[in-house]
Amino acid sequence: MIRLYDRELSGNCHKIRLMLSLLGVEYEKVTVDTPNREHKSPQFLKLNPLGQIPVLADEDIVIRDSQAILVYLARKYGTEEWLPLYPESMAKVMQWLSFAANEINNSVFIARLYFRFQMDVDWQAAQIRSKPILNIMNEHLQNRNWLELEHPTIADIACFPYIGLAPEGKIDLEPYPHVIAWIERITQLPGYVNMPGL
Amino acid sequence: MIRLYDRELSGNCHKIRLMLSLLGVEYEKVTVDTPNREHKSPQFLKLNPLGQIPVLADEDIVIRDSQAILVYLARKYGTEEWLPLYPESMAKVMQWLSFAANEINNSVFIARLYFRFQMDVDWQAAQIRSKPILNIMNEHLQNRNWLELEHPTIADIACFPYIGLAPEGKIDLEPYPHVIAWIERITQLPGYVNMPGL
Repeated sequence: MIRLYDRELSGNCHKIRLMLSLLGVEYEKVTVDTPNREHKSPQFLKLNPLGQIPVLADEDIVIRDSQAILVYLARKYGTEEWLPLYPESMAKVMQWLSFAANEINNSVFIARLYFRFQMDVDWQAAQIRSKPILNIMNEHLQNRNWLELEHPTIADIACFPYIGLAPEGKIDLEPYPHVIAWIERITQLPGYVNMPGL
Repeated sequence: MIRLYDRELSGNCHKIRLMLSLLGVEYEKVTVDTPNREHKSPQFLKLNPLGQIPVLADEDIVIRDSQAILVYLARKYGTEEWLPLYPESMAKVMQWLSFAANEINNSVFIARLYFRFQMDVDWQAAQIRSKPILNIMNEHLQNRNWLELEHPTIADIACFPYIGLAPEGKIDLEPYPHVIAWIERITQLPGYVNMPGL
């Protein structure tokens, strides 16, 4: 049985919950008590030295990092539609995994940390950084239904939760109608699951 | 002919120069005048809306983001040794691509921006964040020659430049002997090329 070390309000965990659900893969959730810093406990650091959720344990295979877990699930339980192997296609998907790990993480993600969890972060700088990020996505999605390849890939799943949760960081998505339409499209995928705030 | 939009002092560009050299792939360098913000010019933003280097143009295929370019080069010009397709192995490599895009980028990379380029960043916070990052790498490399799979992969190439350049951000690598040994090992790969500061 797959175990997902999880927290309901984590968008990074939601990427994995959503992917598992879209793939129809059964799993068990293990809730990590992050408010009491269980993710920094010696026991958890053995699973992930970075002290972050999600972590996926598939029998004795332990994978950390939401982007890496998406790659694992696509390769192990999905078709090549989710993560194509053709060099150009794989690289195009990879661009958005880095975009999720870097640009999204340093903008909308941080603004939400302040307003949703009252964390001590520079939410104003994060909100300012969010604008060009959302503009880039909006323009990119102007003539596309999905981020790459005209069908859903793990690129869409990696970028979706924190973009969808942007309003929780007091970032209005209304100026980005193509982003809103893309969010809608994702919520209509067979097997879609929601999380609080989306 | 492959064109690499490049800047000599960019560690992200060096990932690609190193990979191209290790693979023995010929290419042409196009130096982008980042001090005069050429990377934010309308012309360059057509290549990469994020306004970042490196960008790789292989005939009409244009890939941005150093991690995505490594994936492209490994799939197109390398063997599966550089980027294995087996789910667990690919995910393990992917963990380090995210580590490069996120943890390394938010620590040693930022400290160097201050000391090397006098950029207005919080170098003290970056130096503090560098310690656990380097500790994790050091412990991970204690019983390994390479980050994953007992041979060099794009995980090593993605993490190498900014870790090797850490002393330019006034971060001493001496407390991390296994990291130093790993750096040494990379510099001895056939086809290795250097950059200023490494």
